[in-house]
Amino acid sequence: MLSPESLKLYTRPMPLVVQKYGGSSLADADLIANVAQRVVETRKGGDDVVVVVSAMGNTTDDLMQMARRISDQPSGREMDMLLTAGERISMALLALAIRQEGVEAASLTGSQAGILTDATHGEAKIREIRGDRIREYLDKGLVVIVAGFQGVDPESKDVTTLGRGGSDATAVALAAALGADRCEILTDVDGVYSADPRLVPLARKLDEVSYEVMLEMAASGADVLMARSVEFARRFGIPVHVRSSFHDSAGTWIKEETMEQTVITGVAHDTSEAKVTVHGVPDQPGVAAKLFGELAEHEVDVDMIVQNVSTAGHTDISFTVSELNIDRAREAAERVLSGLDAQGVDVDTNIAKISLIGAGMRSHPGVAADMFRQLAENQINIEMISTSPIRISCIISADRCDEAVKALHDYFLPPDDLVTEAAP
Amino acid sequence: MLSPESLKLYTRPMPLVVQKYGGSSLADADLIANVAQRVVETRKGGDDVVVVVSAMGNTTDDLMQMARRISDQPSGREMDMLLTAGERISMALLALAIRQEGVEAASLTGSQAGILTDATHGEAKIREIRGDRIREYLDKGLVVIVAGFQGVDPESKDVTTLGRGGSDATAVALAAALGADRCEILTDVDGVYSADPRLVPLARKLDEVSYEVMLEMAASGADVLMARSVEFARRFGIPVHVRSSFHDSAGTWIKEETMEQTVITGVAHDTSEAKVTVHGVPDQPGVAAKLFGELAEHEVDVDMIVQNVSTAGHTDISFTVSELNIDRAREAAERVLSGLDAQGVDVDTNIAKISLIGAGMRSHPGVAADMFRQLAENQINIEMISTSPIRISCIISADRCDEAVKALHDYFLPPDDLVTEAAP
Repeated sequence: MLSPESLKLYTRPMPLVVQKYGGSSLADADLIANVAQRVVETRKGGDDVVVVVSAMGNTTDDLMQMARRISDQPSGREMDMLLTAGERISMALLALAIRQEGVEAASLTGSQAGILTDATHGEAKIREIRGDRIREYLDKGLVVIVAGFQGVDPESKDVTTLGRGGSDATAVALAAALGADRCEILTDVDGVYSADPRLVPLARKLDEVSYEVMLEMAASGADVLMARSVEFARRFGIPVHVRSSFHDSAGTWIKEETMEQTVITGVAHDTSEAKVTVHGVPDQPGVAAKLFGELAEHEVDVDMIVQNVSTAGHTDISFTVSELNIDRAREAAERVLSGLDAQGVDVDTNIAKISLIGAGMRSHPGVAADMFRQLAENQINIEMISTSPIRISCIISADRCDEAVKALHDYFLPPDDLVTEAAP
Repeated sequence: MLSPESLKLYTRPMPLVVQKYGGSSLADADLIANVAQRVVETRKGGDDVVVVVSAMGNTTDDLMQMARRISDQPSGREMDMLLTAGERISMALLALAIRQEGVEAASLTGSQAGILTDATHGEAKIREIRGDRIREYLDKGLVVIVAGFQGVDPESKDVTTLGRGGSDATAVALAAALGADRCEILTDVDGVYSADPRLVPLARKLDEVSYEVMLEMAASGADVLMARSVEFARRFGIPVHVRSSFHDSAGTWIKEETMEQTVITGVAHDTSEAKVTVHGVPDQPGVAAKLFGELAEHEVDVDMIVQNVSTAGHTDISFTVSELNIDRAREAAERVLSGLDAQGVDVDTNIAKISLIGAGMRSHPGVAADMFRQLAENQINIEMISTSPIRISCIISADRCDEAVKALHDYFLPPDDLVTEAAP
């Protein structure tokens, strides 16, 4: 007969958590056993668990290198077939390790888990998640392990990969599709910091960051979680906990804005961009549109854009792009300018973007001035500026990046603020 | 306008060849490039080509070792998920290498290629091949690369592996399902030999062997092609060409019987078996049935069986099994005997099986006597004998195996017979 106690078991489903483990947390057999124990503890704590895994250690890079030795222009379809072997290995080994601990587990590829994407090999976008098979396994009491970074294009039935940060995106998207209570990103750092701790030893681990601020931080070079995953979490209201896979301390929660807003949350930096300057462009309508239209057509994402005041009917336009795209960007600019009376195109890869981020900035208009003054006092020249309501970014010389991050962190987030923060 | 010449192109389909490359032929980037060139030559020679690949070099063993480090009783489902990553890597790399040569190619997993199996993880049997996707790709002019050794169980949608020799089985089954004109097994040996060339330097490469003889050779320890693949080829009448992947010389054709039959085709040996002897079994009805029933129930395949003449109401039963199954076999025998008044169970792993094989044996009744005499003249003791219409096998001590093979080869296939055979 059903007692009220047993009824409760059937009417209230167990909380569901999606945990994502990165490649460095799964790099060898011992680390996999360690992750398995962690998963088993969570399961025994009463949660249903879906685990998303990356490929072990450097597997993806190793496979890419092998492909490059064989082909100088590898087909996207075959590269995706190749790279998806990586998560296949880590997820099967993790399933074995969890079963070894006495807990039933089963692994699913992206395709088996119903992760449907568009057809863009190497950078596919998730279109839909059909979670039936995952739910069926969860209902049977299994821990379900899903390959991160991969999906399937339902048209061609070809396997696809999601590109950089793809496993995080898989985890957050699964959490949304399955109605998970939380999503944990377990990684080799302790959480999100107010600046890169390698540059700023006094950088502070943040207990909580809003989606909005995290989005700006991700776009400004904080690489702990990519913007696409944060945006997904924000859209579906999934609380994300970024924490260490090596110990049990709390990390950083990324969630809806809290009532009280700090003025400055952190200082981010990014040295992966390059600057293109087009000199002496005739100041006539449509030139900028043509230039950035051409860049978009060749899939070059542009970050910052600055156009100088026109002098004598000519002007300079500067923009930044990822260093990886610099050749395509230069070619596009040269193509557009070839018909015009312009002076030429300059490229500078020796730049850094320094950003101050904080939701409280909205109500503190003096922050930008303070930032520029701090840089000036350190004799750091500002080459470009761009702002959002909660971020100010400056392009400076890459050689001065570390100095600038330290100076801004010292000024806006002085050690005094850290008194309430317990040392780990 | 269609000329008679162009019409011919459309009305007469191109010949189709299925080529299978083993792991040692795909062990690194250079070898993969080498295989790609070979495939491209075949394609440019006017054949449609389906390529079946094994995993690169020792990949499968490496993955198994990793799994064993993590789990002492690995789940079959997860082992299959893990191991199938091996062919995924080799097939994607081979597709890249073929495309690098300017020929379009696409790789398919066992599941994508429609290879449906039963649910026996680790030793699945192919039930059906739905070749639509392969045919569609062939019609588009692509070289199609299919992962060997793997399939999918359509009930559970779980990935399965076919066990030892699985990639050869994939190739022959695909050749049958697609109506291929021939199946080539490209490997690290030059073909099928009249004896192991490591033991018998004068062993002769066979130009042609019938399915029937090849079946007996495979069952007797010639490991170039497993019995299951030969049986499949025989059933569907697929001519199989076993040849080297490293050079272009002809190897051995396995096909329907030819008119003229040699008396002896070859001498095979197998040291992978062990002998179990049950002493003093009461000579009452049903004991043997119970013993071999018990063995079958525990999935122990028995090869040879000998029962001695009964003396004083008791008898001895000896049988051979794979060394891998020796513990299970001993346990099963002991379980059956525990209720009976038997004297005990002996195990001998130090045995070899020597077999003489040849379709012409049927019409030459003296062969067995000649074989026993040759062994006797070399003072080699025969422990067990078993025969088929085209094979005679003797169990001897493993220490005498090399000697026995050489003596039998010298006697039944003397060097004189080799005069017509051109040296490579």
